[in-house]
Amino acid sequence: MTLKVGMLTSGGDCQGLNSAMRGVGKRLFENDPQTEVYGFLDGYAGLMQSNYRVMKPSDFSGILTLGGTILGTSRQVFKTMNDPLYPNRSDGPTKLEGMIRTYKDLNLDGLVILGGNGTHKTANLLSENGLNVITLPKTIDNDLWGTDMTFGFQSAVNIATEVIDGIHSTASSHGRVFIIEVMGHNVGWMTLHAGIAGGADVILIPEIPYDPLAVAAAVNKRAREHKRFSIIAVAEGAKTKEEAKMSKKEYAEKIGNLPFLSVAYRLASILDKLTVQEVRCTVPGHFQRGGSPCAYDRVLTTALGVAAADWVIQKKFGVMVGMVNNEIVGIPLKDVAGKVKSVPTNHPLIQSARNIGIYFGDEDLENG
Amino acid sequence: MTLKVGMLTSGGDCQGLNSAMRGVGKRLFENDPQTEVYGFLDGYAGLMQSNYRVMKPSDFSGILTLGGTILGTSRQVFKTMNDPLYPNRSDGPTKLEGMIRTYKDLNLDGLVILGGNGTHKTANLLSENGLNVITLPKTIDNDLWGTDMTFGFQSAVNIATEVIDGIHSTASSHGRVFIIEVMGHNVGWMTLHAGIAGGADVILIPEIPYDPLAVAAAVNKRAREHKRFSIIAVAEGAKTKEEAKMSKKEYAEKIGNLPFLSVAYRLASILDKLTVQEVRCTVPGHFQRGGSPCAYDRVLTTALGVAAADWVIQKKFGVMVGMVNNEIVGIPLKDVAGKVKSVPTNHPLIQSARNIGIYFGDEDLENG
Amino acid sequence: MTLKVGMLTSGGDCQGLNSAMRGVGKRLFENDPQTEVYGFLDGYAGLMQSNYRVMKPSDFSGILTLGGTILGTSRQVFKTMNDPLYPNRSDGPTKLEGMIRTYKDLNLDGLVILGGNGTHKTANLLSENGLNVITLPKTIDNDLWGTDMTFGFQSAVNIATEVIDGIHSTASSHGRVFIIEVMGHNVGWMTLHAGIAGGADVILIPEIPYDPLAVAAAVNKRAREHKRFSIIAVAEGAKTKEEAKMSKKEYAEKIGNLPFLSVAYRLASILDKLTVQEVRCTVPGHFQRGGSPCAYDRVLTTALGVAAADWVIQKKFGVMVGMVNNEIVGIPLKDVAGKVKSVPTNHPLIQSARNIGIYFGDEDLENG
Amino acid sequence: MTLKVGMLTSGGDCQGLNSAMRGVGKRLFENDPQTEVYGFLDGYAGLMQSNYRVMKPSDFSGILTLGGTILGTSRQVFKTMNDPLYPNRSDGPTKLEGMIRTYKDLNLDGLVILGGNGTHKTANLLSENGLNVITLPKTIDNDLWGTDMTFGFQSAVNIATEVIDGIHSTASSHGRVFIIEVMGHNVGWMTLHAGIAGGADVILIPEIPYDPLAVAAAVNKRAREHKRFSIIAVAEGAKTKEEAKMSKKEYAEKIGNLPFLSVAYRLASILDKLTVQEVRCTVPGHFQRGGSPCAYDRVLTTALGVAAADWVIQKKFGVMVGMVNNEIVGIPLKDVAGKVKSVPTNHPLIQSARNIGIYFGDEDLENG
Repeated sequence: MTLKVGMLTSGGDCQGLNSAMRGVGKRLFENDPQTEVYGFLDGYAGLMQSNYRVMKPSDFSGILTLGGTILGTSRQVFKTMNDPLYPNRSDGPTKLEGMIRTYKDLNLDGLVILGGNGTHKTANLLSENGLNVITLPKTIDNDLWGTDMTFGFQSAVNIATEVIDGIHSTASSHGRVFIIEVMGHNVGWMTLHAGIAGGADVILIPEIPYDPLAVAAAVNKRAREHKRFSIIAVAEGAKTKEEAKMSKKEYAEKIGNLPFLSVAYRLASILDKLTVQEVRCTVPGHFQRGGSPCAYDRVLTTALGVAAADWVIQKKFGVMVGMVNNEIVGIPLKDVAGKVKSVPTNHPLIQSARNIGIYFGDEDLENG
Repeated sequence: MTLKVGMLTSGGDCQGLNSAMRGVGKRLFENDPQTEVYGFLDGYAGLMQSNYRVMKPSDFSGILTLGGTILGTSRQVFKTMNDPLYPNRSDGPTKLEGMIRTYKDLNLDGLVILGGNGTHKTANLLSENGLNVITLPKTIDNDLWGTDMTFGFQSAVNIATEVIDGIHSTASSHGRVFIIEVMGHNVGWMTLHAGIAGGADVILIPEIPYDPLAVAAAVNKRAREHKRFSIIAVAEGAKTKEEAKMSKKEYAEKIGNLPFLSVAYRLASILDKLTVQEVRCTVPGHFQRGGSPCAYDRVLTTALGVAAADWVIQKKFGVMVGMVNNEIVGIPLKDVAGKVKSVPTNHPLIQSARNIGIYFGDEDLENG
Repeated sequence: MTLKVGMLTSGGDCQGLNSAMRGVGKRLFENDPQTEVYGFLDGYAGLMQSNYRVMKPSDFSGILTLGGTILGTSRQVFKTMNDPLYPNRSDGPTKLEGMIRTYKDLNLDGLVILGGNGTHKTANLLSENGLNVITLPKTIDNDLWGTDMTFGFQSAVNIATEVIDGIHSTASSHGRVFIIEVMGHNVGWMTLHAGIAGGADVILIPEIPYDPLAVAAAVNKRAREHKRFSIIAVAEGAKTKEEAKMSKKEYAEKIGNLPFLSVAYRLASILDKLTVQEVRCTVPGHFQRGGSPCAYDRVLTTALGVAAADWVIQKKFGVMVGMVNNEIVGIPLKDVAGKVKSVPTNHPLIQSARNIGIYFGDEDLENG
Repeated sequence: MTLKVGMLTSGGDCQGLNSAMRGVGKRLFENDPQTEVYGFLDGYAGLMQSNYRVMKPSDFSGILTLGGTILGTSRQVFKTMNDPLYPNRSDGPTKLEGMIRTYKDLNLDGLVILGGNGTHKTANLLSENGLNVITLPKTIDNDLWGTDMTFGFQSAVNIATEVIDGIHSTASSHGRVFIIEVMGHNVGWMTLHAGIAGGADVILIPEIPYDPLAVAAAVNKRAREHKRFSIIAVAEGAKTKEEAKMSKKEYAEKIGNLPFLSVAYRLASILDKLTVQEVRCTVPGHFQRGGSPCAYDRVLTTALGVAAADWVIQKKFGVMVGMVNNEIVGIPLKDVAGKVKSVPTNHPLIQSARNIGIYFGDEDLENG
């Protein structure tokens, strides 16, 4: 009997979304050319409002290398609801009711959801409400609980590293301090990997609140050692020890005063007063999550996508398709939802980095 | 009789400096293995303080692809004088005296200077003071008067374009406005080229003061036409019509209040109020001037570098080695010094861009 | 009155075809949203057999960065005629009659043709037969007469250079001779530029027949000078002095015995006997003409494409849109057709290359 | 007490060798600035002939991104012995004696060896002879027994994938069959990963002997299904079912007749007769192992390199530093030596590939 399968991408986009959907689609059609695949537009908003397109085999050709997501995505549903691009939208039922209704109206056998942390809370909710849900771990942050690796991460790390590489070559010509702001509001995986890969001298991540004085001391120490420059990789969500003590509200107020002012620029204005060298900022921003997925992510997404399709065929639901110890496993959605995989402050990579002289901004100024 | 040739790189670094010096060095040593080449460190500061290294043929091997400059460079000499990395420096004579003295002490036959606009003022001054000077047009800004092309420009445009490409693929997944800040404090060549090459919807350059309302109108018009996103390429030095009327001092004061705040973030906070879509910023910064030169710049720098060496051998001085109508020509330093090659507001490329619907922020809101 | 414009891409594909068509299409629709644009499939074959698709504005969105050509192309029409993919094709009239008939049946106002040398012979023939033809100079070989630059060239040179760069870093670790085969059956522009940009030690191009012994001598001389490796950039069409004397038939017979054997492998088997070092080959092949156009080509194609559209609107036909001394000019098709722009053996770049010690295989073994 | 540590790189070079040595060196000097590090040149040849350079901390700066190996390497020692670059070499003792003698003369505390399969046989031999040996798993082939991943692999896969990407975009414009020869004489890991990542239609690896007719059938089937082109990723060591039955000698004789003729060209001449479409070849060759390591390999090599240094400090020898289930572990050299990690023909990735319609050339022509 022919399967009816829904698919959607939610949350911030990243590399590998299209190649993952390609794996799902190609496998479903290879299994049964009659399979009906419904692609919901702009994430949960499309499911909520029954806004979809029927996907044919040809829709999955030529998208392996394509950045972004051909289905579109959305972060905040409430924003999408008011989106001028989609005026014709009923606002009647609750969002959950709307999503369940669409699923039942289309008489779907399963729903494949590609997303990150926020997405998984909703995915679990839908699963608890009886929908046949299976998810794929999408995020450049690599902060999904239960899987060793998320797709998008290695591609984004490559780009952030490429940026640091470029800064490196120009830095070597000037006596300067360069600050590169790497994506990651809540976790430091990207900054840790890109910082090590790019040869950063200082790495600042959310998990390790930093002391601006310790950062300045590290930079000045390098200058005294006749090292021409210092490169600081700082995560968007890195906080000073003082900021780390603040409530979300207090912190928002502090930052809010400077609209769109990034952590890099904030750190720059501090260091500018504490170092003799000029300070420069680079904020690659969304450049890090755009473009074609790297080979690693293409292989990973193909393997995960095919597995998701196989599990839909086998009616194995309620799980996220993850990678643990190089094997594909299903992690129950209820275990994934609401958890965040932060960088342990004693992670071996952090120790390795410290062991070759990389600073994390938490050094003891008196005995350091 | 064996030649003694000095070489230095001054001003902001860029791609192609090392490959240009390679062309000069390889040609000089091919002509006479006994040639003495003196590389002054950190630009004019090295010449001023007789801070140099003798360069051997091997110093020019393997640097063709190397970003930055192996001699180091400096923008503001006064800063370099106080540079903690070089404490042992006399501050006695004037800078000019120091430079002339070094030249005469070393009994140089010629001095090859690689630099941009600021550099050429000093180069012309040295030439007027009797030094045998020949220069090479280095700048990612392509704003040197007298040559069709400067090296570094095409490489930097490639990177800025690559950044816009990455933003493009992520933008297509979200309904957003993306602002990419492209280098260029005084001229818009890079932003114009990268904006067209990256498929930007709005291009803002210093030569064309913009009306924030016109930019917002363009962005909103696209949203109404169901185009999911808008990409704005803005030059560091782009100014609103209001800012363009300010004196340097007034403008500095306006900006100064927000240390390290970029034009992209300033524009973002305005647009955030005038558009329904989310606004995001990308500031690639020095990433644009780092890394390996593109093939175009490697060929250009090799041709120019070899020509500079030939002219030193032929005792042809007082000129910048430029490219005009695909031919290498010498432009008198006095003609280059102090001039800036801005983008003519009626430049064919700007007309081509307008003709395919690209906005420049100067559109007439009432009849536009 | 609404214009009806045809468009086709012919000959080997290259980077920039889609961005050039984008320039044409966006300009035509910006000028008049009602314009009718017909895209003929697979080059002249599509025109011949009235095999086309009507192109809408949306067809020109998102193709700026796309490699290849969305219209498809073909090199040998006779092959395409038998193409299993298009069985339903009449073979009645002559090819020329078929093309003229399609043009008249569709009542076209003009036909924009993107192609290289072969393409221009036919384009000129069509023009002489009364069709309103305008062409764009497409080829990675840069061998079109009348224009300083063709699009695709800089992009292809970048890739060939990137390949040589990669070989360089591995070569430096081994004592080896590496041969890189660069595209170019008839001219050496790509090999000359990529060879210089990649830092090749030996550059072999069709315009300068080489002596294998001179190449071996150059390689061995470097080994004796304790240079660990030698890199040879050879054009597909490079010939030994002996081969250069052969007739096309004699040469074909000589090569024909080894089907698909490349010039690189032929040279390798010779050098293997004449040098002490191991010899390795790299044949990037079509990799050189694939992928996204570089920024230079995107700007060039946009400018040329918009100009082509403007000239169609202005009814200026019978010319190729070229670039001469940085200005867009129209070169009469009859002047372009049948001519080839070879590399002059005394070209300044060749002289610059010789002046820094690059070999061209024509060195005099006795006095060299 | 100050440590004396030797280091060498052996076998074919690859990305990550320098960054791995950087990890070792930086860790050793961070632990004790007085550490003496001896870098042996050109692999075991340098150890054999006491040909080394003393390495300072500065030698490990700026090499993180550098391709190749700053120590040089060699595959066949006998060749290196006759290397014209190093004439001053005694040929007295056996190679093993020479290596042991150098180790004892320098009174080394440990020897860090970076290499692949061949290298590990010798490393194990040295270990069995009482030398304190620790090794790092270097190879683009990923065929070292005992570790999940070798460094160089992901970087090389990225390049091979980039090549297939380029071919893809040009292929889509022509009705052609493209054959890309991917490195791998003995195992198919690279071809499998790059083939999947590049979206190849046919993947041929040494572990799965292929039937040329099955490959032709797959290509023609795609043509009949109106797919314009077919892309074949073939490993250097891929063999037909017939060739797989041959003895090494028989096979060598068969190939030997066509010096330097690659598997791609051999396959091309067969397919040319069995398909209607034109066939083209791309042989990226050593381009795949050159250039800067990808972020993944930089992080991996830093972690492994630091661990190797730590184990030298802790006097933990006789092991290869490997990665198993994302943890760094020591694998006894005797377990690694002489083993090869081939691709299991039932590997999940192969199954995933087959499940989305990728051919492996072993399909049953009658019932397939």
